[in-house]
Amino acid sequence: MSPKTAAPTLKDVLASSQPADWRTPDPDDVLYLELASGRVVFELAPAFAPAHVANVKALAREGYFDGLTIVRVQDNYVVQWGDPEAQRPIRSAQRTLPPEFDRAAAGVELTLLPDPDTYASEVGFAQGFPAARDAASGKAWLVHCYGMLGAGRDNAPDSGGGAELYVVIGHAPRQLDRNVTLLGRVLSGIELLTVLPRGTAALGFYEKPEQRVPIRRVRVAADVAPAERTELEVLRTDTPTFQTLVESRRNRREEWFQYAVGRIELCNVPLVARPKAH
Amino acid sequence: MSPKTAAPTLKDVLASSQPADWRTPDPDDVLYLELASGRVVFELAPAFAPAHVANVKALAREGYFDGLTIVRVQDNYVVQWGDPEAQRPIRSAQRTLPPEFDRAAAGVELTLLPDPDTYASEVGFAQGFPAARDAASGKAWLVHCYGMLGAGRDNAPDSGGGAELYVVIGHAPRQLDRNVTLLGRVLSGIELLTVLPRGTAALGFYEKPEQRVPIRRVRVAADVAPAERTELEVLRTDTPTFQTLVESRRNRREEWFQYAVGRIELCNVPLVARPKAH
Repeated sequence: MSPKTAAPTLKDVLASSQPADWRTPDPDDVLYLELASGRVVFELAPAFAPAHVANVKALAREGYFDGLTIVRVQDNYVVQWGDPEAQRPIRSAQRTLPPEFDRAAAGVELTLLPDPDTYASEVGFAQGFPAARDAASGKAWLVHCYGMLGAGRDNAPDSGGGAELYVVIGHAPRQLDRNVTLLGRVLSGIELLTVLPRGTAALGFYEKPEQRVPIRRVRVAADVAPAERTELEVLRTDTPTFQTLVESRRNRREEWFQYAVGRIELCNVPLVARPKAH
Repeated sequence: MSPKTAAPTLKDVLASSQPADWRTPDPDDVLYLELASGRVVFELAPAFAPAHVANVKALAREGYFDGLTIVRVQDNYVVQWGDPEAQRPIRSAQRTLPPEFDRAAAGVELTLLPDPDTYASEVGFAQGFPAARDAASGKAWLVHCYGMLGAGRDNAPDSGGGAELYVVIGHAPRQLDRNVTLLGRVLSGIELLTVLPRGTAALGFYEKPEQRVPIRRVRVAADVAPAERTELEVLRTDTPTFQTLVESRRNRREEWFQYAVGRIELCNVPLVARPKAH
């Protein structure tokens, strides 16, 4: 039980943030998933999955996803889309790729969290993404927090590639870390995915084709006319402001809280994106 | 990286389970939330929140919840219902109660998990519920995993009581542990809650009264004619079979997995409920 202080809340931290605390994602690394209900915006993570990011962009640019469907919505787990029968031809992109489950830790600047993690010896944030690191193996990897984007695969580790994609919509399924390639995360619009009816076949697949949710288009933001883009800025994770944010969440000072635990788990740290002021 | 063995999967564990591995919740501690879309079934936890459980049952029995609405759906957080203006009279039950944020650890048999937890020194399962324990304070408490049922409150710790209830529908908001009274968990039907439209007002409240989702009835299962009950059985958490289940999830052996991390976080352990065989 920590005493209450005048330490800032998340609201305070954001209110006092400066322009340099924010960054604008490169539109060439931003993906739009367009549904009848609206747009889901993703930031891609080329530092962790360069081949998958390039391939998903190539798939988007050849129109591969347009008219495909969301085929699986498993409660407390994932939303997944693609071409389950793999019937649609792929022209310039690849159907499968070697896995990018982890990478060399060297070259990854990780803003570390101070609290223990159940699954990894070190966790934190790299370029705005939740990530983990292991000194023994010298590896770093992205972590399956809520809203992370991954490349579905079959049993063979090299059977993914981004033609089938999923988004985490439940409690972080950390057992998937280092088992599947993560390549980005949702910046806005996840509620368009999380409200979809759950599939009732095994693994949350929709039983009937007519239950599937059509995808209008998937586009790289750079290819979209500027007036039609969703202009977002993202709070940097490598700044003193972000450290203050983490502390404000480790020890909650809002009046409602009676007890400040003094710790925070990786996937409970808010990664803030907001409309860009013009 | 653990070598693959013939260790059982979850499916194997359930297939080889015996009748004694299962228990039938007391119908007097089971709550039905009836919506137009179907029934959500909760098991209540009188060992942790006796006054709140008794009060919620009294509220249900006087029909307090019938015709009230779900007023808040905040993505990755909670679904909440009640009477936000507190206008509906309460007859035999209480509107507010002293908090039951934690209890004496003595008397709580906890099936401990072996892996570190970010928030508590010891975690595990007590009578089928995710729970934590702290030797220093001698306290035990229920934990905010996906599907847990809590009693909303205002800023004063004694301003809850069960007239307003919430269910966790996102990544475990563990900062709420010991700050609010948890009194049960969903056994079935959570997908009726998780697909509801997210509210667009602050904290995910619905902006307009007509967006609220009507509650047909809330009943204690014991008060429902046996033929109309949802007969479920729940896998015990204090058995060798449950230990085998935990091990099967700490080290995933299904063919799909390339890497078995050898650990599991509290809220990732499946707490299995299934229709009771007749």
